[in-house]
Amino acid sequence: MPIVTDSPLEITAYDWAPGFARGLVRDLRPRWACEEIGLEYRERLISAMDRPAWYYEEQPWGQVPYLRDGDVHLFESAAMLIHLGEKTGALLPATGQPRADVLSWLLASANSVEPMLGELNAITIFAAEEEWAKLRRPSLLAALEKRLIPVARHLEMHEWLASAFSIADIAMTTTLRSISAAGQLARHASLVAYLARNEARPAFQRALADQLAAFDAPPAQPGGPSA
Amino acid sequence: MPIVTDSPLEITAYDWAPGFARGLVRDLRPRWACEEIGLEYRERLISAMDRPAWYYEEQPWGQVPYLRDGDVHLFESAAMLIHLGEKTGALLPATGQPRADVLSWLLASANSVEPMLGELNAITIFAAEEEWAKLRRPSLLAALEKRLIPVARHLEMHEWLASAFSIADIAMTTTLRSISAAGQLARHASLVAYLARNEARPAFQRALADQLAAFDAPPAQPGGPSA
Repeated sequence: MPIVTDSPLEITAYDWAPGFARGLVRDLRPRWACEEIGLEYRERLISAMDRPAWYYEEQPWGQVPYLRDGDVHLFESAAMLIHLGEKTGALLPATGQPRADVLSWLLASANSVEPMLGELNAITIFAAEEEWAKLRRPSLLAALEKRLIPVARHLEMHEWLASAFSIADIAMTTTLRSISAAGQLARHASLVAYLARNEARPAFQRALADQLAAFDAPPAQPGGPSA
Repeated sequence: MPIVTDSPLEITAYDWAPGFARGLVRDLRPRWACEEIGLEYRERLISAMDRPAWYYEEQPWGQVPYLRDGDVHLFESAAMLIHLGEKTGALLPATGQPRADVLSWLLASANSVEPMLGELNAITIFAAEEEWAKLRRPSLLAALEKRLIPVARHLEMHEWLASAFSIADIAMTTTLRSISAAGQLARHASLVAYLARNEARPAFQRALADQLAAFDAPPAQPGGPSA
């Protein structure tokens, strides 16, 4: 869907990101969901390096994304995925085991796999040269493997995490992209293939292009806090 | 609510836990939600030290809790909280900003605060004597503070995370209990007070007592995989 300026749906993203983070910032998640569902949205870009003070009133940690949908606003990308999924049911079934499977795997992504990223990014990017990071590396990579192996096995037998492509796949794919960027995915063929088929989706490609385009736009003229 | 043997709702928990984990295992979350809502449930206890092979077919990482509700089954405690919240609406409003607030804070607990626990438990319990853990400690505690401060500020002004007690409070309280057990909560008066008023709830007390009672019961006679 095109990004439009008068949509009631607004996604807040950064107007710049360092090279290693481009294509990995989490506003990719609600952008991708909107593209899959066919929802127009508008962008609100803020500075990543000089975040406005008022933004912390909306998002406790000053992070992106932030979602407004008319009078309703949310933070946390996985919460936004649930909200967007519930708008149409296309990516989140309304009841029964299909819903339970999507919620289970969405939270597995958010609470069992993605939590490894904080420390993984620390030892590979932010603190890579520190002694603790070098000493920690073997045990952390072993712990990461324990997290990845059950997901890899599941995806050896299933095309998607649940019975059809869902918000759980949006969350897991974007998490696995960061693990791949840290060089830790290649030994799991089923995860590499899963990533490739999700990244090939036209909706993903449009969302990715729009995140990257925002980094090339003129610096943000922040519109101020949401009404 | 009493634990009953013929309830269609079944929570899987461990029949034993090491001392440092007692009262902190995450089956506390669905137990607590059931107590708040007034739902009877039955227990299925499995061995923590010798987890049955079939259990990994139900829960990818072999962890507890696992929830069955008649024909529906879920893993991931936060997914269970959503499922239980949706059964009555008591702890998860059905629509609008009240629902958005609960989902945002539930996911903030699961994806912005709880992820710190992996590394915090590593440096304070599992790898406390390792050199990397000692070197890592100052920067990790600084990162933890950045996660906690916005939550503490929010709870200086609000009794609950959202407009009323909700599944987000169940998730955040149980996360903060683990941070407190690691000795890292005392400097935030609003978080200490929030923890105290949630732990004083009769429903929490019953859930905690039932988790602890399971550890004193005879060793589990596992009933086998769920039908």
